[in-house]
Amino acid sequence: MNVMTHQAPDLRIGALHDLYAAGTTPDTVIAAVYARIAEVGDPGIFIALRDRAEVVAEAMALPPFDPEAYPLWGVPFAVKDNIDVEGLPTTAACPAFAYEPAEDAFVVARLRAAGALVIGKTNLDQFATGLVGMRSPYAVPFNAVDPEIVPGGSSSGSAVAVAQGIVSFALGTDTAGSGRVPAALNNIVGFKPSLGLLSATGMVPACRTLDTISIFSAGVADGWRALQVAAGYDAADAYSRDLPAPALDTRETLTVAIPDAASAKFFDDTLQAEAFAAATARLMDMGVTVEEIDLTPFYDVAQMLYSGAWVAERKAAMEDIMAVEPDVVHPVTRAIVSAADRLTAVDAFRGFYRLADLRRAVQPVLERYDMLIVPTVPTFYTRADLEADPVEPNSRFGTYTNFVNLLDMCGLAVPTRPRSDGRPGSLTLLAASGRDGLLAALAARIETDAAVTPGNGLAIPMPLPLPTCARNETVIAAVGAHMSGLPLNGELTRLGARCLGPARTSADYRLFQLPGRGVPKPGLLWVNRGGKAIEIELWAVPTAAVGAFMAGIPSPLSIGTLTLEDEQTCKGFLVEAAAVEGAEDITAFGGWRAFLHSLTPTPA
Amino acid sequence: MNVMTHQAPDLRIGALHDLYAAGTTPDTVIAAVYARIAEVGDPGIFIALRDRAEVVAEAMALPPFDPEAYPLWGVPFAVKDNIDVEGLPTTAACPAFAYEPAEDAFVVARLRAAGALVIGKTNLDQFATGLVGMRSPYAVPFNAVDPEIVPGGSSSGSAVAVAQGIVSFALGTDTAGSGRVPAALNNIVGFKPSLGLLSATGMVPACRTLDTISIFSAGVADGWRALQVAAGYDAADAYSRDLPAPALDTRETLTVAIPDAASAKFFDDTLQAEAFAAATARLMDMGVTVEEIDLTPFYDVAQMLYSGAWVAERKAAMEDIMAVEPDVVHPVTRAIVSAADRLTAVDAFRGFYRLADLRRAVQPVLERYDMLIVPTVPTFYTRADLEADPVEPNSRFGTYTNFVNLLDMCGLAVPTRPRSDGRPGSLTLLAASGRDGLLAALAARIETDAAVTPGNGLAIPMPLPLPTCARNETVIAAVGAHMSGLPLNGELTRLGARCLGPARTSADYRLFQLPGRGVPKPGLLWVNRGGKAIEIELWAVPTAAVGAFMAGIPSPLSIGTLTLEDEQTCKGFLVEAAAVEGAEDITAFGGWRAFLHSLTPTPA
Repeated sequence: MNVMTHQAPDLRIGALHDLYAAGTTPDTVIAAVYARIAEVGDPGIFIALRDRAEVVAEAMALPPFDPEAYPLWGVPFAVKDNIDVEGLPTTAACPAFAYEPAEDAFVVARLRAAGALVIGKTNLDQFATGLVGMRSPYAVPFNAVDPEIVPGGSSSGSAVAVAQGIVSFALGTDTAGSGRVPAALNNIVGFKPSLGLLSATGMVPACRTLDTISIFSAGVADGWRALQVAAGYDAADAYSRDLPAPALDTRETLTVAIPDAASAKFFDDTLQAEAFAAATARLMDMGVTVEEIDLTPFYDVAQMLYSGAWVAERKAAMEDIMAVEPDVVHPVTRAIVSAADRLTAVDAFRGFYRLADLRRAVQPVLERYDMLIVPTVPTFYTRADLEADPVEPNSRFGTYTNFVNLLDMCGLAVPTRPRSDGRPGSLTLLAASGRDGLLAALAARIETDAAVTPGNGLAIPMPLPLPTCARNETVIAAVGAHMSGLPLNGELTRLGARCLGPARTSADYRLFQLPGRGVPKPGLLWVNRGGKAIEIELWAVPTAAVGAFMAGIPSPLSIGTLTLEDEQTCKGFLVEAAAVEGAEDITAFGGWRAFLHSLTPTPA
Repeated sequence: MNVMTHQAPDLRIGALHDLYAAGTTPDTVIAAVYARIAEVGDPGIFIALRDRAEVVAEAMALPPFDPEAYPLWGVPFAVKDNIDVEGLPTTAACPAFAYEPAEDAFVVARLRAAGALVIGKTNLDQFATGLVGMRSPYAVPFNAVDPEIVPGGSSSGSAVAVAQGIVSFALGTDTAGSGRVPAALNNIVGFKPSLGLLSATGMVPACRTLDTISIFSAGVADGWRALQVAAGYDAADAYSRDLPAPALDTRETLTVAIPDAASAKFFDDTLQAEAFAAATARLMDMGVTVEEIDLTPFYDVAQMLYSGAWVAERKAAMEDIMAVEPDVVHPVTRAIVSAADRLTAVDAFRGFYRLADLRRAVQPVLERYDMLIVPTVPTFYTRADLEADPVEPNSRFGTYTNFVNLLDMCGLAVPTRPRSDGRPGSLTLLAASGRDGLLAALAARIETDAAVTPGNGLAIPMPLPLPTCARNETVIAAVGAHMSGLPLNGELTRLGARCLGPARTSADYRLFQLPGRGVPKPGLLWVNRGGKAIEIELWAVPTAAVGAFMAGIPSPLSIGTLTLEDEQTCKGFLVEAAAVEGAEDITAFGGWRAFLHSLTPTPA
């Protein structure tokens, strides 16, 4: 079979779909998946593996290959074992806690309905409490890039399954960093979506107010595809939110914050500090404006997760089993969760008040910057380090992750160039809730720039698909000074609009240079005869911002309906006919840019 | 002096401002206020009264009368004594707790900056815990309409001060109903704004996550004026929200829910049940669509306020004094708050989970109806009743109020026609957060219909001012089928747009009947010569909804800038010139309505 590259099958979704389109059947891919499992030979990755014949039968029963209707057709994935898959027990890495779920978790059901194939349930830090992947009664999985290093957790098995090239993507969960730390340690991508974007129905809670299902993938494009399928409102989950479908935000001009030297923490790991400095330098080379901020208020937030009231949420989730069989709980986990015993309801409310104050304190930072960029982990720890001290290295891993869900931010960990000692580099991009598509777009640029082969030597990730207009956006055709690079373009980008690229009108328009002072502007007029096709530029404007955009459009311009060359229509700039009486007709130039160009003296 | 009507001065803000405009000076009004205090002679209303000479000095130092710049110029008001006023102690009706605030509460400062004059600090159920007004170590104020009935609480003094005609409005607070129950019992208006609209900086918390400052007034218009001044974002209060400024929503078509017979509770008070039925029947006469719903899920929410985790918030607020001097706390209050002692942080989180589930359960009701309308109180209790049982009648008063803040709703209690025994009637209008202006507009219609003299025989309230375009709205001129009563008007009203009334363009336009099938439409064209003024209609559209509105506007119509008769400009419908070649010119009719009218055959 031809799905093998390096030692692992090429499971990038685009590559798989090319194979399927060329006639490969999914049983071939499933065979490669199970062969790869055997080849890796790590008994710590899966807690439960599905019978291969069962997966093949499910795959062969899929409707005919149709990637439009089934965007994950024939794509193998793994599920962290604190998320329900019908037919497999859910253990949360605590065998005494195990139950047989009656149905798939909401998110799993969506992925399967899109054609994805569950391979198995993956290992984790018990009850998703930990960032090391060492707190499981099952065999601890080996880190995919360096077996000495811990696999990272709590979503250890899911991250390793992706990094070892066993599955195209895997579901994790993320409360304190469990969807990001293992991504960094295994050199892959970890999406930590906005809270409420992915339903938690069918997930064992860790801290219900802070939990989210997360997605691991080798490259940004594959995680993004899975995210778009998995995201959706679920009325049955009280913490699900009716957020807009995630849409890529490819804005060119970005201003990001990074921790300043005084507040960045690397615990004396100078190679990690150098790697972070190098990665942010490349950001600047890419045209991103980078400013340093004091990260202390964010650490103050993080402090509350384990030493504040929220540890009581973990207790609430584990209370039944702690009451009946405390000994089956991992001793480190038991010690952490027992801290909740001394917390009163008054303490809980005091915690919320403090968090509300801290959220208010960091709000100006979140508003000022498009995103915050941090190292995903401050340093690396080995399995031996954790055997010596199971607590402190775990805490340190959460340095740049613990505050994120308390602040209702979304996050994305993406590989960067390796450190000088070969260990993987990783940045985490963080932004206010709902900006998942902004993170994905920059992460894809970072990934392309770094050209890392992710995980254990997988192929270079594929590019993201081109952005299209989302349900909550309106396409507006810019005709003149609002086009990219021209003086009024900021009126679009400031409102969060995204350029979808150039286009041409149907051959029914004439273009005029409008008289008047100020920024030079054209007027586009629909005519019954004698028209031509005019070059324009399409922008996706958030529909809720269209009103604000219109407020700045002066007479004699209006927003009406334009017909494009391909007979599609969209909203766009028009001019009132009476205003072009006597104005210069510049239709012959074919567009405003060409007209402006004609005004520029050609160098001798 | 001429500010006296009935036995009390006419303190309606419009009436006062007419006096000031005619030359009356505020010292005359202040004299009337203090004369009225003496006349009422109830030592239970105020805990601290400002020295009359001090208020007069402050009033005479106001800038010259200018009601545009100072919308509350010379308006006397009272402040519940759990809200800070510089120069007066804040006691929360617990003398041992008293402190001298360094500055005015945020809301008090805004009101004073608008020209309002603080008269004094009013009595309350201690720490705002109670709905009866009887739980104070100070003399209990007498109900203004019937001294046998309890005054209601916790904002007892503020409600009575308004109902006795001592002040134009008064600040209360509302966590469980303290801004609504005393309004009902004293026959006045009680605004319970959306949470976060009024800053809580300088307010003694009861339950910080649920508290709001509230406003009492004789009529809706006065409360609305005070609300518009008081509302504003406060970065220093972590629970303040950056909500749009409250704007009246005068939509004509309303569908409201009321409790069905099985779930309405009146505790065998048939007169109260009759009064509620009569009030809702009048709503139907006013053209409001009224549907019955089961109120049980709302009662389930209410249940959580005192038997769930939130009692710990009250404990958090009183913990210091309870630790040091438990005996100074009112025994009933102490018993209530001590229930928090057995609550753990796990209980608190379990409470939040249950509330999240209940919120989700009632969400379809909140989305389906413009508002929920309930009796403000289920029945009446006398001072003797409360002396016999200080707890049960208090609980019953909260029947229709306790669930409101837990569900993040805004509320407004408004007098209706009295019961057959003469006791005051009151409805509470409730809606999702942000709909304060919708409640105010309907409450004003109810008030006008009922024609009640509020409080202790005050004058009939003045009408609300006409709606104007708010900061978060865009004026769009409808020219044809979108005007009120015409086929496409629903495209505006469904988006929450409000009609601002008719208008005319400048004399530079021509109107055409557009050819084509479907709803008949005109096209408005700006011309350089030969134009006329055309009748149009102005609508205030939420700016965030303009994009959705535009999506439904087909070619050849566009939204551009119209010039009005008064030379103002606004956005509005225009037509592309090429589309009216050969169309019928109907400019001579002066507008689309007149043209349509000309098509209707005149009856013989």
